[in-house]
Amino acid sequence: MNPRFRLSLEPLTAEAFAPFGEVIGIEASAERFAINAGTTERLHALARVAHDGGQAVISIGIAQSRRLPFALELIERHPLGSQAFVPLDGRPYIVVVASTPADRPRAFLAANAEGVNFRAGTWHHPLIALADHSRFLIIDREGTGDNCEEVRCTEPWWIDAAS
Amino acid sequence: MNPRFRLSLEPLTAEAFAPFGEVIGIEASAERFAINAGTTERLHALARVAHDGGQAVISIGIAQSRRLPFALELIERHPLGSQAFVPLDGRPYIVVVASTPADRPRAFLAANAEGVNFRAGTWHHPLIALADHSRFLIIDREGTGDNCEEVRCTEPWWIDAAS
Repeated sequence: MNPRFRLSLEPLTAEAFAPFGEVIGIEASAERFAINAGTTERLHALARVAHDGGQAVISIGIAQSRRLPFALELIERHPLGSQAFVPLDGRPYIVVVASTPADRPRAFLAANAEGVNFRAGTWHHPLIALADHSRFLIIDREGTGDNCEEVRCTEPWWIDAAS
Repeated sequence: MNPRFRLSLEPLTAEAFAPFGEVIGIEASAERFAINAGTTERLHALARVAHDGGQAVISIGIAQSRRLPFALELIERHPLGSQAFVPLDGRPYIVVVASTPADRPRAFLAANAEGVNFRAGTWHHPLIALADHSRFLIIDREGTGDNCEEVRCTEPWWIDAAS
């Protein structure tokens, strides 16, 4: 695989991911307040759900693992709604996003059980799970209209564990 | 504590919970289809998010544990939106719901890392976590308007582990 097209894995931080959406985790900067008669601390509105028309639904995805090194196949986006993935068993996975299909993608390693919320219209690769049967909660849009654009990668981008 | 007011713990099944909302788990009856180029199985729309006006937001709650036997304190409801809680670390917790504040509540034990989605207007006790620092993903409504009604329990309902 051509080193020129190798993507380095970046840590998944709220700041680095901000152009693409939100990180759903224990963020120091979150607005916090007590609920449930003071017995629960709420980290409020870590992400916002967009669903132009349609309705927000909660689903579960059970992902097969992908082997590294991994060659990117395609990227897609959902123009009509946000899409959140939150790991339910804390296993690591890789999130790949791009500003446009022509730009160099960025690859983030979610190593601390954080979730991500892709802003509506954010180009992303399907999640790259690193452990079999990884379960993710998915919060996204159900409704009419064409909410999925998909393009094949034009360059042979790839990622590896040791990057 | 008066045995007459003791609530038995029921298993949290989709069928038993249906009058109050949805169970978010690996349901045999879920609509399933493949996403992510066939590498992920999606259990679709296990729950639907309602947010009359306002917006759906994704938050995290970090709950202190409650000790059993536990006396119920109050019940509340959110007339303008649904509210989902999904455990992020798979720890058991208890969900208490009621048809009306005057009815005998029902107590469900979530023992298999399932989440719940309270339908808008469902009377419920604040979640009763059984392990400290239990983390829950919360999907509910943010917006103007009075979305929380709270009433003190009029009878001394209580729950115990061994019920």
